[in-house]
Amino acid sequence: MPRSNPARRHSLTDAAITLLASDGVHGLTHRSAERAAGLPAGTASNYFRNREELLVAAAERIVELHLAEMAQADAAAVEQAARHAPGGPTPELAELIGMSLEVAASAHRDRYLAVFELLLESRRRPALTAALARLAGGAAGFTGDEHAQLGLDLPARAVPLLVALYGGALFTLVTGPGGAGGPGDAGGPGGQTGPTARDLARAIVAGVLATTAPDEADRDAPGAVG
Amino acid sequence: MPRSNPARRHSLTDAAITLLASDGVHGLTHRSAERAAGLPAGTASNYFRNREELLVAAAERIVELHLAEMAQADAAAVEQAARHAPGGPTPELAELIGMSLEVAASAHRDRYLAVFELLLESRRRPALTAALARLAGGAAGFTGDEHAQLGLDLPARAVPLLVALYGGALFTLVTGPGGAGGPGDAGGPGGQTGPTARDLARAIVAGVLATTAPDEADRDAPGAVG
Repeated sequence: MPRSNPARRHSLTDAAITLLASDGVHGLTHRSAERAAGLPAGTASNYFRNREELLVAAAERIVELHLAEMAQADAAAVEQAARHAPGGPTPELAELIGMSLEVAASAHRDRYLAVFELLLESRRRPALTAALARLAGGAAGFTGDEHAQLGLDLPARAVPLLVALYGGALFTLVTGPGGAGGPGDAGGPGGQTGPTARDLARAIVAGVLATTAPDEADRDAPGAVG
Repeated sequence: MPRSNPARRHSLTDAAITLLASDGVHGLTHRSAERAAGLPAGTASNYFRNREELLVAAAERIVELHLAEMAQADAAAVEQAARHAPGGPTPELAELIGMSLEVAASAHRDRYLAVFELLLESRRRPALTAALARLAGGAAGFTGDEHAQLGLDLPARAVPLLVALYGGALFTLVTGPGGAGGPGDAGGPGGQTGPTARDLARAIVAGVLATTAPDEADRDAPGAVG
């Protein structure tokens, strides 16, 4: 019963993610995924009836990996916060987001390149739009929870703004000068240097706080996050 | 001498941009560009020897259109600033950037979808990287000039940060819930509402000012841009 072999299914979807990053949407076929996973020709059609099913499965696998890691990061941040004395400084939101952006753009660069390939393709395939919507939804839910647990008092409308700017910054990082295979931030070819993940995170958090909590602007503004 | 007919060349590159936006990189071929431009089969090979030349020509055409419009926006902003009394308030940077983002994500959505398709493809084609580098370079040069002419005192390291966040926000807007063909901002299918171009611009400008001019943070911060 090959259809019910989850390890084999994962090896195909993981190969699909790598292929999306390296060769683009068009480079992903049943055959290329089988080859990259080291599986015999014909295996993939036991799991995915057509190319769209394969694309959707890759998107769903990305969402699964992404949410699992967000939950881990969440637990780590809450634990770190708990070590602080009550009333003491909590871990900076800008710091947490900077770390998250940096890891996404380096260790998980392939995964997010695959996301951006799929996002553009989703304009032509509504089935992909549905699968990818869970990424932003999960991110928003997680962000809200984490902020509550860390005692960060973010207005509700800050969250979609934060998620949108985070996603955009990640796109810039993975497609930017450093994007040809180097680490997340800093120098690209020819000595070009773009903003780092941490520069971007600091600006995003400062901007979101400043423009969504006008009454508390003085407290939340630059000094607290710069 | 068909190779020297600039109008025909433009009609092919403009068709190429539309095809990139609607069908992705793989949907653009000599034949599809000819068909979309209403030109006879075989015309495109008089202008572009191969597919890569066609992709590069589309990228160069986008850069040309983009820089021409930035120059126009620049002139308009400077003119608007000149109408203000000396020492009076200048047009808000956040306002200018919000307008620019809104126009890019609505009237020119196809163009920027094409840019993002080409940016992802450029990881596999260095010739595209070179053509697209002029977009960011032009944006940075323009941004620096405009700020000087408007009397906005931005530190040098604010410019690449602004350009990176602007590009990311534009990606989010053109691929987001409103991205299936609706206008630039606001509601997508199912009543989902993302941040608008102006929300994004306000947060970006506030964040860049707050994190690049720490000594002047109090003056530049929230109140001035919110």
